[in-house]
Amino acid sequence: MGEFDLIQRYFKSQSHPSADAVPVGIGDDCAVINPTPGMQWLVSSDMLVEGRHFLSTVAPERLGHKALAVNLSDLAACGATPRAFTLALSLPRVDETFLSGFARGLFALAQAHDIALVGGDTTAGPLNICITVMGEVPRGQALLRSGARVGDDVYVSGQTLGDARLALEVFRGQASLASAAEFEQVRRAMECPQPRAQLGLALRGVAHSAIDVSDGLLGDLGHILKASGVGARLDVDALPRSAVLAGQDLALQREYGLAGGDDYELVFTAPSDAAGRAAVAAAAAASGTPVQRIGAIEAEPGLRLHDAAGLALSAAAFSSFDHFKTP
Amino acid sequence: MGEFDLIQRYFKSQSHPSADAVPVGIGDDCAVINPTPGMQWLVSSDMLVEGRHFLSTVAPERLGHKALAVNLSDLAACGATPRAFTLALSLPRVDETFLSGFARGLFALAQAHDIALVGGDTTAGPLNICITVMGEVPRGQALLRSGARVGDDVYVSGQTLGDARLALEVFRGQASLASAAEFEQVRRAMECPQPRAQLGLALRGVAHSAIDVSDGLLGDLGHILKASGVGARLDVDALPRSAVLAGQDLALQREYGLAGGDDYELVFTAPSDAAGRAAVAAAAAASGTPVQRIGAIEAEPGLRLHDAAGLALSAAAFSSFDHFKTP
Repeated sequence: MGEFDLIQRYFKSQSHPSADAVPVGIGDDCAVINPTPGMQWLVSSDMLVEGRHFLSTVAPERLGHKALAVNLSDLAACGATPRAFTLALSLPRVDETFLSGFARGLFALAQAHDIALVGGDTTAGPLNICITVMGEVPRGQALLRSGARVGDDVYVSGQTLGDARLALEVFRGQASLASAAEFEQVRRAMECPQPRAQLGLALRGVAHSAIDVSDGLLGDLGHILKASGVGARLDVDALPRSAVLAGQDLALQREYGLAGGDDYELVFTAPSDAAGRAAVAAAAAASGTPVQRIGAIEAEPGLRLHDAAGLALSAAAFSSFDHFKTP
Repeated sequence: MGEFDLIQRYFKSQSHPSADAVPVGIGDDCAVINPTPGMQWLVSSDMLVEGRHFLSTVAPERLGHKALAVNLSDLAACGATPRAFTLALSLPRVDETFLSGFARGLFALAQAHDIALVGGDTTAGPLNICITVMGEVPRGQALLRSGARVGDDVYVSGQTLGDARLALEVFRGQASLASAAEFEQVRRAMECPQPRAQLGLALRGVAHSAIDVSDGLLGDLGHILKASGVGARLDVDALPRSAVLAGQDLALQREYGLAGGDDYELVFTAPSDAAGRAAVAAAAAASGTPVQRIGAIEAEPGLRLHDAAGLALSAAAFSSFDHFKTP
């Protein structure tokens, strides 16, 4: 099967954007998209490489899901409505089992988020997946890293922070679980992250700043602090954790929650007054997404960690994931 | 050097989009772009893999140029004004000589075409470069593959069709040249293609259809014919060729010109009446780009090739480049 057959069979045939929104989709030199008047256009790219962003053991369907999910998570962190994406794929060979599963996972998530595949590229080469997502926000309403203010509360979404890292460590033989069911639960967190798109939309006009947790909570919150010129204190024991993670040693729970990586939850800051807290609670309820208050923004730069009893912990012990350092 | 240092040092520091056009560039979860009111948004992605799209012998500066050039060529083929691009880069290691050269070539071309780097990704892995370009056209004015009409002239731009393929065959030991100067000339065609951006803009409202020649003239013209539901006849001897290519056997000249690949010229069709021809000549002059009339669109499907004497040649002998077939 050649390049053009492949595009046609697995991707173009399943991509049906509306002609109003996307007058020209897959199959020309460029896709043509009609931006919504009055909206700003948001763009993000993520590249996934085997052994770095996924293991060779992942099911193709989950890989298709995850490749798009990590990109949708970037749109969610900005409060953007998904519009369109491109997919560039380098494959060692044309493997129909892989491609059909990959496409199934990809398009199921694309349809759930109403985002259209509009173009891309396929080539022979080491397995590599590069997706570029595009979305929209009303002018000036994008959630940014730079908006945190002194006195803001710090929140994180979800209840499985650290589970993806726990699954990775089980694969590596560095952690063990009580049952296959527990393993499947954390493996799902690692392989099937759910982008917090609805929460991101609901936080427009509510949160002062936001980022998605891809490299670990501390590192990603650190980007907010740096971009906003502020610091923060965090109650480490307030971090949400699954029952499975809660079954591990406390030191591991903290490490995976604070610096696990691959969580794709949102960390955000919002006003700490009654109206601010009520607005966050309403956004969480409207989007059906649990959120947890875990700390506060302070004027003093840097991150200060403490436990539930108020005792200080060293942040230096928890290092965030960097794709150029050996994990 | 970690991922974030690398982004900062080589890419963010050289990316200075205007705040009006790109309110948020590199450094947040998404870039934020202001589309121009009344314009449509065009998007294209290309992924480059070593051994498929470039050789390990290419200078990093030329690779940076080419990675963006092949994407700008897609915008040119649609008549789009370049606006913004993302760069995702997988690298086996952090090699400062490579990165500084790559960035130099990339940004020189980006500045020449007034296109802003707005985001992307870096990771460790086998060398892979994925660029997504975005541009704009006034509503309904994108040049598409589907617009060719019976009676249109067929044109190709430039004077070096086939030179890139000739250079590749010299690298492969399948062709030889008379001098190092000749080699450098065709090698430049292969490694430093010049996207026909100005010609593409000038052809808006003039050409009925257009495509860029990345996989070989016959294959790419074939996409126009299929999308437009028409056929064509081509005068093989009318194809432009460089003096270096003209020094090769006639059979090689024809093969490389018709099915060489990696040319990044524009093939387009336009009305054959006096006004249509004058408009094409004016577009060529305005953009400083030579164009050559090489054939005509016909109602009968398929491609019919003939030589200068009118003798028919078989198109089946010239197969286009497909990234999933062994070249």
